[in-house]
Amino acid sequence: MTSSTQEGPVAVIGLGAMGLPVALRIAETRDVRGYDVSAERVALAASGGIAAAASAVDACRDATVVLLAVRDGAQLHDVLFGEHGFAPSLSRGSVVIVTSTVGVRAVQEVASRLEADGVELVDAPMSGGPVRARNGDLLVVVGASDAALATARPVLARMATTLSVVGRRAGDGQALKTVNQLLCGVHIAAAAEALALARGMGLDPAAVLPLLGAGAAESFMLGDRGPRMVEALEGGEPEVRSRLDIFVKDLGIVQDAARAHHVSTPLAAIAEQLFRLGEAHGYGTLDDSALVRLLTS
Amino acid sequence: MTSSTQEGPVAVIGLGAMGLPVALRIAETRDVRGYDVSAERVALAASGGIAAAASAVDACRDATVVLLAVRDGAQLHDVLFGEHGFAPSLSRGSVVIVTSTVGVRAVQEVASRLEADGVELVDAPMSGGPVRARNGDLLVVVGASDAALATARPVLARMATTLSVVGRRAGDGQALKTVNQLLCGVHIAAAAEALALARGMGLDPAAVLPLLGAGAAESFMLGDRGPRMVEALEGGEPEVRSRLDIFVKDLGIVQDAARAHHVSTPLAAIAEQLFRLGEAHGYGTLDDSALVRLLTS
Repeated sequence: MTSSTQEGPVAVIGLGAMGLPVALRIAETRDVRGYDVSAERVALAASGGIAAAASAVDACRDATVVLLAVRDGAQLHDVLFGEHGFAPSLSRGSVVIVTSTVGVRAVQEVASRLEADGVELVDAPMSGGPVRARNGDLLVVVGASDAALATARPVLARMATTLSVVGRRAGDGQALKTVNQLLCGVHIAAAAEALALARGMGLDPAAVLPLLGAGAAESFMLGDRGPRMVEALEGGEPEVRSRLDIFVKDLGIVQDAARAHHVSTPLAAIAEQLFRLGEAHGYGTLDDSALVRLLTS
Repeated sequence: MTSSTQEGPVAVIGLGAMGLPVALRIAETRDVRGYDVSAERVALAASGGIAAAASAVDACRDATVVLLAVRDGAQLHDVLFGEHGFAPSLSRGSVVIVTSTVGVRAVQEVASRLEADGVELVDAPMSGGPVRARNGDLLVVVGASDAALATARPVLARMATTLSVVGRRAGDGQALKTVNQLLCGVHIAAAAEALALARGMGLDPAAVLPLLGAGAAESFMLGDRGPRMVEALEGGEPEVRSRLDIFVKDLGIVQDAARAHHVSTPLAAIAEQLFRLGEAHGYGTLDDSALVRLLTS
């Protein structure tokens, strides 16, 4: 009897850009059952050794750990409590790990409904992108009770090199992730503005970028998105490493939170407008370095 | 005869927060004559081994290198061409190093007036703060002709561990510095927003800061200003390491440049408003981490 059998199967619902590599990573040491609304994604997962489930309910049968990697709060609600939602089929004592960035309120609502059925939610938004997901090198910030975390920890430990427990309530992970995404979104948009201004002033963006990155203007996002923005400025089509519409969603979550807590966040508000304008220009499914195209002609 | 005598004295005009440590650093290997409108600053410089000059004209006598560390474009113009301006007393072949951030236009105007008298301007805005200035550890971005740079280089090399020659025209250094300050100003304001939101959401800013700094939300400014912002949130009065009104000036320069080149820079525009609002609240001479006080109550 292998340890994976002892620990039971893990269900992964949502096999998108992040869910699939996470599922593949977990499948290296545990039995994983995967489900996605797209049959294509399920087939892709199956080719990587994941047991294909015919439905979310099917995937979750007998699972003590269900990991959700859905797009947004609406999908989270639907997959659990919608027409084909799997929440009613969960057994008491199982845990649901929410790895998506959906905001505090969405996670708290879901957590309290699950709690009524004896199921605990582990609030565990992840960041790092698909490559780091495949390598188990994500950053995961957690809000969960000690008991729920104990059940979820073996799975989370496979996914993350950095696992930060922010608090004991569902929503604590989302709160930190919300603040994190405020900075990420503003930094990406600031990088686009800076490179657009550099170009406007007659500087060579490719030459400017390393100089900016060497000093006080440095940010992770400048280093990460900067080269792809330079590529876009030079007429290229950068590889999609992080879709622009992700930050349309995440900066919306930032504003929801700022509104709920009566905090003024004017830079994040403007950054949200820039991402939304990018989406309106048809760049939603492009790499978010496409923001620089909005600001140049 | 020492090498410092062979190379002749260096004049430093402006002995403020940056000018004084720069002068003291250069004075370790060269004769330096210093002048400032404040007699107190001149006396302070004299106690550190710098020859006190009675006027800017006096400081520049026989100097082949004059280094200017003034506050803004108005001071730059005045110290050179005003009532007691030293420009008429400069000898042909000498160079004027402008280390201040004054914008492209201000430096270009001054450079063309000096050029008519056979004096070249070395556009060399510096960054790094007083401590790094004292240690010769600044970042200096340079726009200058090869000939002017050759004359200025021994002085610049004493000041900077990183000397980046951006172009050969006066204004090229300012252009890069302008883009740099766009990012710095936006990143400081974004850090303030993020920590204000963290506090508003019930997170502990001191606990949140290292988590944000470990991932994609990281920036130099978050790491540098973040701890002082946390101190301010906890009711402390952070040490003044970089005055808030510096970015009122620098983000004004950013908008001047953006306007001149017809580039849209909405985040920098909002950041400028935040710094200006901070100044209106009486925080202009405080450390710029005081921005977080604007966004919290």
